[in-house]
Amino acid sequence: MTDPEFKHVAIIGIGLLGSSIAHAVTAYGGAERVTMWDSSNDVRTRAARVVPGDVAETAQAAVAGADCVILCTPVGVLKEVTGQIATAMADGAILTDVGSVKAKAAADMGAACPSHVHLVPGHPIAGTEKSGPEAGFASLFQDTWHILTPGSDASDDYKSALERLTAFWIRLGAKVETMDANRHDRVLAITSHLPHLIAYNIVSTAYDMESVEQGEVVKYSAGGFRDFTRIAASDPTMWRDVFLTNKDAVLETLGRFSEDLAALQRAIRWGDGDMLMKEFSRARGIRKAIIDAGLDTAEADFGRRQLDSDQDE
Amino acid sequence: MTDPEFKHVAIIGIGLLGSSIAHAVTAYGGAERVTMWDSSNDVRTRAARVVPGDVAETAQAAVAGADCVILCTPVGVLKEVTGQIATAMADGAILTDVGSVKAKAAADMGAACPSHVHLVPGHPIAGTEKSGPEAGFASLFQDTWHILTPGSDASDDYKSALERLTAFWIRLGAKVETMDANRHDRVLAITSHLPHLIAYNIVSTAYDMESVEQGEVVKYSAGGFRDFTRIAASDPTMWRDVFLTNKDAVLETLGRFSEDLAALQRAIRWGDGDMLMKEFSRARGIRKAIIDAGLDTAEADFGRRQLDSDQDE
Repeated sequence: MTDPEFKHVAIIGIGLLGSSIAHAVTAYGGAERVTMWDSSNDVRTRAARVVPGDVAETAQAAVAGADCVILCTPVGVLKEVTGQIATAMADGAILTDVGSVKAKAAADMGAACPSHVHLVPGHPIAGTEKSGPEAGFASLFQDTWHILTPGSDASDDYKSALERLTAFWIRLGAKVETMDANRHDRVLAITSHLPHLIAYNIVSTAYDMESVEQGEVVKYSAGGFRDFTRIAASDPTMWRDVFLTNKDAVLETLGRFSEDLAALQRAIRWGDGDMLMKEFSRARGIRKAIIDAGLDTAEADFGRRQLDSDQDE
Repeated sequence: MTDPEFKHVAIIGIGLLGSSIAHAVTAYGGAERVTMWDSSNDVRTRAARVVPGDVAETAQAAVAGADCVILCTPVGVLKEVTGQIATAMADGAILTDVGSVKAKAAADMGAACPSHVHLVPGHPIAGTEKSGPEAGFASLFQDTWHILTPGSDASDDYKSALERLTAFWIRLGAKVETMDANRHDRVLAITSHLPHLIAYNIVSTAYDMESVEQGEVVKYSAGGFRDFTRIAASDPTMWRDVFLTNKDAVLETLGRFSEDLAALQRAIRWGDGDMLMKEFSRARGIRKAIIDAGLDTAEADFGRRQLDSDQDE
């Protein structure tokens, strides 16, 4: 193993991502020491049992002496948390995060980040629908993308900080890209934020159908619905903050989605089979691009994934 | 193996489902003989190479002497196909189908089905995003639901036909339910038809974003979008027919979906975090019901499924 990039990594927020970073550092290196803190007493107690590293009593104690601080909280509290630890962070430390929205995250952390700390916002395109310190595992970041949205600081110190953070994430298994924060937010609005909003919404709509029983929805979910429930099981607090902080890009993308959906609706109402055929056919093109890029080896299930469970009979 | 339910099963339409039935009968029994036909010359040639059973030159030849005829064509041509084979079907034969819409399928087949044939419409909640005779495999129906929507014929002959068809599908691995055709269409509108329409639509919206490059959408698809592309890769002809023939239930469900989505959109615009939190939280309840019913053991991926492919580096 090559030398670790950091002497001491501090993790604030011990959910799925925070605990996974602790596991990954323990498994693959990257830091000699890991400390962590969570605003919830209960989470700290549980983390002390299941997550490798030291759980501190306060955020300030967790970041003291750390040369890399990773905020793994919901995006909505980044400003408050940065303010909390501002004076406790070491000279020359790197401050980064894992938030799914980057422009607002950069602005919020930037507003409270002291000048002796290098701010490099980041976002791992990795996760599961599980949350909490028990959900973390070392290989979560393997072969996933990690997007960094560095600031405009052209100093050698900042450049070197960016290089070290890049090397750290590569060591944990990620492929690292740098990108403008606003561009990140537009891309993720369509590849991640809108899909989650749609998934939450369709599950919600199903809940409220008086003409169909809950039990039937669950029973016949293999027809496609089940895939949406999996996405919609993701952490509500995290996603609330994503939609509130990436409001403009999400509303723009959602507006286009609704327009397109209205056109499909009209085609169904008027029996325009040619229009439906054209739209459905081109969806295969983008799927093929994803397969060709080696980005998906899984197949749609429509009832096939439950082969190992037979509890209904 | 117990005695097969049928002497001779004829399959019309040799796509994913038709070829899977042929494979399943070969693997698990259910009929002594399988014949099949497809309106496409090319599909017949390919099926002769890869699907077990005899490929006939005409639909009439395929169904001649069969005591069970299974139509595996898109729903839109069921009437025409039934008319084509009407006089060729044996006395007392069962006519069934695998269409995703049942009221229209029953009406269309019923209009052309001769009185000496027992019509029992059916729908296997099973499939993948692949199509064509090469896509079929024997275990497709294992532990999936098969819904039959029998007619009102109270004769002993009809009852016995229904029993035999039920036993046949159970043998292929399915759990069989009977249901009113209109109820089926309402339930499937929310559990399957709407999810597919939404998946097609979001892929289409992503295609047309000028502010985001295609390559970026593909690259960062692990954030949630990729799950939608998998669903949207399903056979366009089949789905066009589903939406055109289950128009009323789909439009009703889609109307509710759009209303609910507009409410989420408004909450995002006005920063109503409490409303978002409430909606997102209850989605977890329906997910839990699906897990508790043993209906899903797979996890959301968000970048984890491509562990075995590394073509981007």
